[in-house]
Amino acid sequence: MDLKQILNELGKLKSDTYGKDFLLTTEKTEDELKYVGGLAEVLKEFHKQSKSFRLFDSGLGISIFRDNSTRTRFSFASAANAVGLGLSELDEVKSQIAHGETVRETANMISFLAEIIGIRDDMYLGEGNKYMREVSDAVAEGYEKGVLHRRPNVINLQCDIDHPTQSMADLLKLKDYFGSFENLKGKKLAMTWAYSPSYGKPLSVPQGIITLMTRFGMEVSLAYPEGYNLIPEIEADVKKNNPNFKIVNSMEDAFKDADVVYPKSWAPFEVMKQRTQLLMNKDKNGLAELEKHCLANNAKFKNWECDADKMKLTKKGEALYMHCLPADITDVSCKEGEVSKEVFEKYRIHTYHEASYKPFVIAAMILASRFKNPEAELLKRI
Amino acid sequence: MDLKQILNELGKLKSDTYGKDFLLTTEKTEDELKYVGGLAEVLKEFHKQSKSFRLFDSGLGISIFRDNSTRTRFSFASAANAVGLGLSELDEVKSQIAHGETVRETANMISFLAEIIGIRDDMYLGEGNKYMREVSDAVAEGYEKGVLHRRPNVINLQCDIDHPTQSMADLLKLKDYFGSFENLKGKKLAMTWAYSPSYGKPLSVPQGIITLMTRFGMEVSLAYPEGYNLIPEIEADVKKNNPNFKIVNSMEDAFKDADVVYPKSWAPFEVMKQRTQLLMNKDKNGLAELEKHCLANNAKFKNWECDADKMKLTKKGEALYMHCLPADITDVSCKEGEVSKEVFEKYRIHTYHEASYKPFVIAAMILASRFKNPEAELLKRI
Amino acid sequence: MDLKQILNELGKLKSDTYGKDFLLTTEKTEDELKYVGGLAEVLKEFHKQSKSFRLFDSGLGISIFRDNSTRTRFSFASAANAVGLGLSELDEVKSQIAHGETVRETANMISFLAEIIGIRDDMYLGEGNKYMREVSDAVAEGYEKGVLHRRPNVINLQCDIDHPTQSMADLLKLKDYFGSFENLKGKKLAMTWAYSPSYGKPLSVPQGIITLMTRFGMEVSLAYPEGYNLIPEIEADVKKNNPNFKIVNSMEDAFKDADVVYPKSWAPFEVMKQRTQLLMNKDKNGLAELEKHCLANNAKFKNWECDADKMKLTKKGEALYMHCLPADITDVSCKEGEVSKEVFEKYRIHTYHEASYKPFVIAAMILASRFKNPEAELLKRI
Repeated sequence: MDLKQILNELGKLKSDTYGKDFLLTTEKTEDELKYVGGLAEVLKEFHKQSKSFRLFDSGLGISIFRDNSTRTRFSFASAANAVGLGLSELDEVKSQIAHGETVRETANMISFLAEIIGIRDDMYLGEGNKYMREVSDAVAEGYEKGVLHRRPNVINLQCDIDHPTQSMADLLKLKDYFGSFENLKGKKLAMTWAYSPSYGKPLSVPQGIITLMTRFGMEVSLAYPEGYNLIPEIEADVKKNNPNFKIVNSMEDAFKDADVVYPKSWAPFEVMKQRTQLLMNKDKNGLAELEKHCLANNAKFKNWECDADKMKLTKKGEALYMHCLPADITDVSCKEGEVSKEVFEKYRIHTYHEASYKPFVIAAMILASRFKNPEAELLKRI
Repeated sequence: MDLKQILNELGKLKSDTYGKDFLLTTEKTEDELKYVGGLAEVLKEFHKQSKSFRLFDSGLGISIFRDNSTRTRFSFASAANAVGLGLSELDEVKSQIAHGETVRETANMISFLAEIIGIRDDMYLGEGNKYMREVSDAVAEGYEKGVLHRRPNVINLQCDIDHPTQSMADLLKLKDYFGSFENLKGKKLAMTWAYSPSYGKPLSVPQGIITLMTRFGMEVSLAYPEGYNLIPEIEADVKKNNPNFKIVNSMEDAFKDADVVYPKSWAPFEVMKQRTQLLMNKDKNGLAELEKHCLANNAKFKNWECDADKMKLTKKGEALYMHCLPADITDVSCKEGEVSKEVFEKYRIHTYHEASYKPFVIAAMILASRFKNPEAELLKRI
Repeated sequence: MDLKQILNELGKLKSDTYGKDFLLTTEKTEDELKYVGGLAEVLKEFHKQSKSFRLFDSGLGISIFRDNSTRTRFSFASAANAVGLGLSELDEVKSQIAHGETVRETANMISFLAEIIGIRDDMYLGEGNKYMREVSDAVAEGYEKGVLHRRPNVINLQCDIDHPTQSMADLLKLKDYFGSFENLKGKKLAMTWAYSPSYGKPLSVPQGIITLMTRFGMEVSLAYPEGYNLIPEIEADVKKNNPNFKIVNSMEDAFKDADVVYPKSWAPFEVMKQRTQLLMNKDKNGLAELEKHCLANNAKFKNWECDADKMKLTKKGEALYMHCLPADITDVSCKEGEVSKEVFEKYRIHTYHEASYKPFVIAAMILASRFKNPEAELLKRI
């Protein structure tokens, strides 16, 4: 990897990421996605070679997690540390947020020395991404009115719509696997629902994958049992922009001749909508009822498991298996799950490698939003 | 702002803050308060200009929060990070403190590489400040006996008596607003009780304001409904030292011709005393009873709201509204509260700006206590 | 202390610690123990002289605590900060570990930018040390397969078998007290059980002490009431290698002519075995029953208290009293405990000093495992 050449080429891309949030990949141009992705690859190589990319002297990287997380939490912590920021987690139980503070005020109160705010809020359909924009607007106002010396940028660590740090990591894994962005064109990717004994998993990963990978020329099939659709507007948008994108109702159909398969459970859009309403109303009985109903419905589709037989349908029987982890593995983490033990074990290291891009993607998003020309700063360190 | 000149002038003040705790503003001379305040202003400007004031190579900044907090927690985290310390929070649930350790021992056990200990302990009247002194005495002994290489200093992040990081931030806001410390002389400040649907708020903010602002020549009126007095000794001390200080029993009286108003709820001293006793006895029924009684009493004073009509009584109807945040805002965070939506919104950015001083005040307190001549170190960085 | 000379001598020891975990002192050669111990002493002196030993530019130090801890938690935080690592704690409640992830996967997911992983897992007999090795094996695989750029090393912060950061700190305290490793030879140490009103304390401290101190030539007596034995294999191993090691059934016997006494409560091996089984089965009634039975049995041995009369039996009545803290002190932290108030107070500062070695021991373990020649790096900084 010729770091100098890569950094010089990154500098030539028409990328306008400085001072900008990273909330949805659809809001970024192809050049910007390539810029952030290229930066992430460079940072990964820097780390491998023990070269420092600690471009900040000090400052806070704030994370707000409104849902559980191990890997994204550690990815953000790792990225913040590597670029030179101190990590501060906003724990909504410990803090006074429970006591009626408005988002607007809190966002400013925690940001006097902040550079970046990473947010995970994927529980409520129609709310997560909205909350991120509220935080962003609040610190923008604080900056304009002279309260904040700098305007921290917001990074989406998973919302109801998209999971850009995951999909960008997945994109870099695919680029590495097939050799280049160019080589992704025409490759077939099956993004399919899969059975899981749990329910209520967010839609952000499949939505993120179908929107991002089609833009890089992949032929994406989205497969799910009837009724398990994603947010209708997102499906429609992807269809409009990509004549090759199709939706099918069988895992087998999607797997046929696929170069890549991404089998993963999610809750139907309609269920997520009802669940959001019930959660907001704190309707415990309603939630229990919905869960029961939904699990019963899921159980009809236990054959939506990625097993060795289905893998045989893929290109030469050797498609790349992907997952954002943790997967529900049959006979390992559950009795019946998304993927058979055999298939998962064959691709386990690939899934770890896929995940390994995430901290560097986040670090790249931080540097791309907070420095005018991070590639120039990095060139000085080679 | 001529940083060089300011730093040179700070160096001339007779300030003896090196190696000293910051527990009460009343224990500091006027020069020392000006020194810490001036340092905070310089650090704020450093941050604005992206100049580093990371004077520590490493070391821990420890925070002990015995009450909820968002803004002070983040202010301390921000300050520790900016001066180069790693943040470690002592979480009394996770740790073994619950298992009978003495304060003395724990204070030393956590301090082997500590530089500063920030403590918030404002729940128990007669206990919070005492606890801070116990911690301070313990690490002083550890240092004297050779157990600790350095004696970490203690910073009061709010106790039962004072809230010096808040009142110092407020002082700097006032200095900025009126142009100089000199201009504060003779300005009228109304520190008044205000209605809130909650109860049990600490007395430290009003106590901190009346003690500090009178020392800078402000004419302070303290207003509260009968029975809602502060710690009697503090009221008496302020009165003794400041013939212009007065206590009135009406918000309107206090607001008349005021240059600054600071309407804020607190619990009556007698209630806090009873509450402390009940908390210590873990008397849940007693606490519920007291809360009920106290809320009922509060409700008699719902007209103690800072609204547009009352603001008209102030100097040209344009007094500066201050609050330590979060405020109980009528129709925003509660049905009836300390301040009307209209008044709060007019001064909202001012209250954010007021709060923006706090991380730099804490950073200044850290540097002033841990470096012999921080101003000399900072001069080298200009 | 001639730092240069000491560092040069450390460089001559035959020590193979680079890239190695620190899980048990028995897996280290005497030279390696002296190397790590010597490094810790040097780092302590560096800190005293305000010399930096921040050898890392960035990277994470991860801690996993599966049991409560104040002092070890802060020791690890202090050490990580001082060597230049950012601290990230894996909180098993917040994270998704509860959702069926395998140790293998999680270990890799948190380690992409990690340098060191400190683990405390001392609740389950037969499990703690095993878990550490699983984590170690997992990241070793991740490194070999190219998922991790570096293989983080694991440090045992207390398991079911050993507590090496404690026993190494104790060893350095003894070296300091008696002047040299050489002087430890033939000194008598009484490692004795003591009464405590609690139950279920781990066996790792007494096991760590008898295995380590006998290797440095001390004549160790282990004393406990009948039935309160440690893991039988560990007792047998120590006996085999050290003809002078003996087990007695009276505190008085062990104290006779002792140069050092270390009276500390622990649960009998058989109780720990049963408790592990009950904990794994989540048998709450069984656990309550066992606790009741065990406390009743403990109560028969309340005379196993280290008091002034027993101390008179020791060498000139002036043996050094040691404890890993917190001690159960009669009339201080409990009604009847491990040590009398009088004896503890006499040696209190000694126990603090003993504890003060721990952060530096951990820092030394980190540097010894992550740098080929940390002594050479440190020499450059003198």
